[in-house]
Amino acid sequence: MSNILIFGHQNPDTDAITSAISYAYLNQKLGLEVEAVALGAPNEETEYALAHFETDAPRVIKNAAAETQEVILVDHNEFQQSVSDIRDVTVLAVVDHHRIANFETADPLYYRAEPVGCTNTIIYKLYQEKGIEIPKKIAGLMLSAIISDTLLFKSPTCTDEDVKAAKELAKLADVDTEKYGLEMLKAGTKLSNKTADELLDTDAKSFPLGDKNVRIGQVNTVDVGEVIERQTELEAAMAEQNSKNGYDLFLLVITNILSSDSVALAVGDSKDKVEAAFNTKLENNTAFLKGVVSRKKQIVPPLTEAFNK
Amino acid sequence: MSNILIFGHQNPDTDAITSAISYAYLNQKLGLEVEAVALGAPNEETEYALAHFETDAPRVIKNAAAETQEVILVDHNEFQQSVSDIRDVTVLAVVDHHRIANFETADPLYYRAEPVGCTNTIIYKLYQEKGIEIPKKIAGLMLSAIISDTLLFKSPTCTDEDVKAAKELAKLADVDTEKYGLEMLKAGTKLSNKTADELLDTDAKSFPLGDKNVRIGQVNTVDVGEVIERQTELEAAMAEQNSKNGYDLFLLVITNILSSDSVALAVGDSKDKVEAAFNTKLENNTAFLKGVVSRKKQIVPPLTEAFNK
Repeated sequence: MSNILIFGHQNPDTDAITSAISYAYLNQKLGLEVEAVALGAPNEETEYALAHFETDAPRVIKNAAAETQEVILVDHNEFQQSVSDIRDVTVLAVVDHHRIANFETADPLYYRAEPVGCTNTIIYKLYQEKGIEIPKKIAGLMLSAIISDTLLFKSPTCTDEDVKAAKELAKLADVDTEKYGLEMLKAGTKLSNKTADELLDTDAKSFPLGDKNVRIGQVNTVDVGEVIERQTELEAAMAEQNSKNGYDLFLLVITNILSSDSVALAVGDSKDKVEAAFNTKLENNTAFLKGVVSRKKQIVPPLTEAFNK
Repeated sequence: MSNILIFGHQNPDTDAITSAISYAYLNQKLGLEVEAVALGAPNEETEYALAHFETDAPRVIKNAAAETQEVILVDHNEFQQSVSDIRDVTVLAVVDHHRIANFETADPLYYRAEPVGCTNTIIYKLYQEKGIEIPKKIAGLMLSAIISDTLLFKSPTCTDEDVKAAKELAKLADVDTEKYGLEMLKAGTKLSNKTADELLDTDAKSFPLGDKNVRIGQVNTVDVGEVIERQTELEAAMAEQNSKNGYDLFLLVITNILSSDSVALAVGDSKDKVEAAFNTKLENNTAFLKGVVSRKKQIVPPLTEAFNK
């Protein structure tokens, strides 16, 4: 088999999985032999979306070069977030909405990035530009990704273009965006059956801030209390991850997707930096962060500033 | 002044200069405060095009951060080909047709790359997408860039999209493409009055290949012999540039625009990599490269592979 493989990032979220599906369909319609695959199994939110729009999860691959010479990346570009043997294949194209870093090619390629809230918003525009009709199920999956990435348009990463694409996709998918969106987001918040480490790893990334190594995890929920109840267990797991992985500070951000607020739980050194960043006092290692939902826009920037002082 | 500055690469060629002009005009029409500038003076070919279409050469800048926080790159992305203080400003957008390497941003951005022969072909599509009319003079400059980059459609980098864009632009600019194109290309090949360093710098770029720093210059001519005649003088100048600027290898590609072949002249280390890349033997430091006219498609990729072995 020598299909071109299309895939999103490791630890795939709804945008990573569905943008591979939607961009593969577009390319198939344009005559390319492509296959949507994934670098991991769908999470519960994505499973809900796939089931609702009657679509199978993409095949999971561990490496690419054994079966193809050519790949297309969606929803990521940084090689450490991509397939393990990315350097052994040719990247033909990228469609993404993240910063560009740790990415390079030997040849010219097609690269389409825009600073919008969701990769599927860009893919929606590509369908328009090519004049290709979006089938109902694929429109539903694309809408799901926009809802997921923008937390139902409440994240500060959400742009007018995301809102506009979502409106058109909701018509094509024939769903009530608010109602379906909340159900889908809730499906991704079944946290009670997860171990402490699973909770911490759900969506965690490391950031070098000042001269410290800071780990920031985030979980979405409709019931913050259900997570905070397990504070002792979580703190022990965070302390263990700190000492095992050399993190100076672990910050877990527990985000209430209904109220669009978060509670931060901090374990490790430099807790004064957290207090300075959010102009607050930690009580019992926690702080309420009113209106904060975006790690990229509302957590990393003030922390960066606090650590650089 | 806090205009966003738009510029092409160092040692600007016709596409680098005119894509800054054409993309600046498009962005101005879309309401952005932008200014087209350049990282060097136009070469003779570009001067011919600017004079023909009655357009002033863009202001030359040495650095950017003193006058702006935000820049847009056209016809390049690699930082070593860009303004010297590129890391001190924010790259808002890139429109390019080269490989991506040595490029990174802290934030999401607009990035539009396509594997076509000329940046202005992509910019032509952006005008179409935005529904903005292209003025006659700007159409002429964009056409000039396509003629220049594709050597009148003879380069293997030339795609159907370049040909299509050029046809439409020729109508808007009201010129006979073949006649104007040959005159313009010849205007860029007056080499006899140039010093060796001027010849080497005409269209030279640096590439990190493997762990080596490789300088690749290219000159277009209708008389390769006129250049090769000066081999001793050129080799001395290349050796001096190598030692002064830390290049491990200098490769000068002398391209016959009538026959679409090139002669390569190599000075420095790693000449075995040149031989491996082109499956040839250097004789007296030179090799005939049949059918080779494109640095991007026919020189950098095989050299990259040879240096990575």
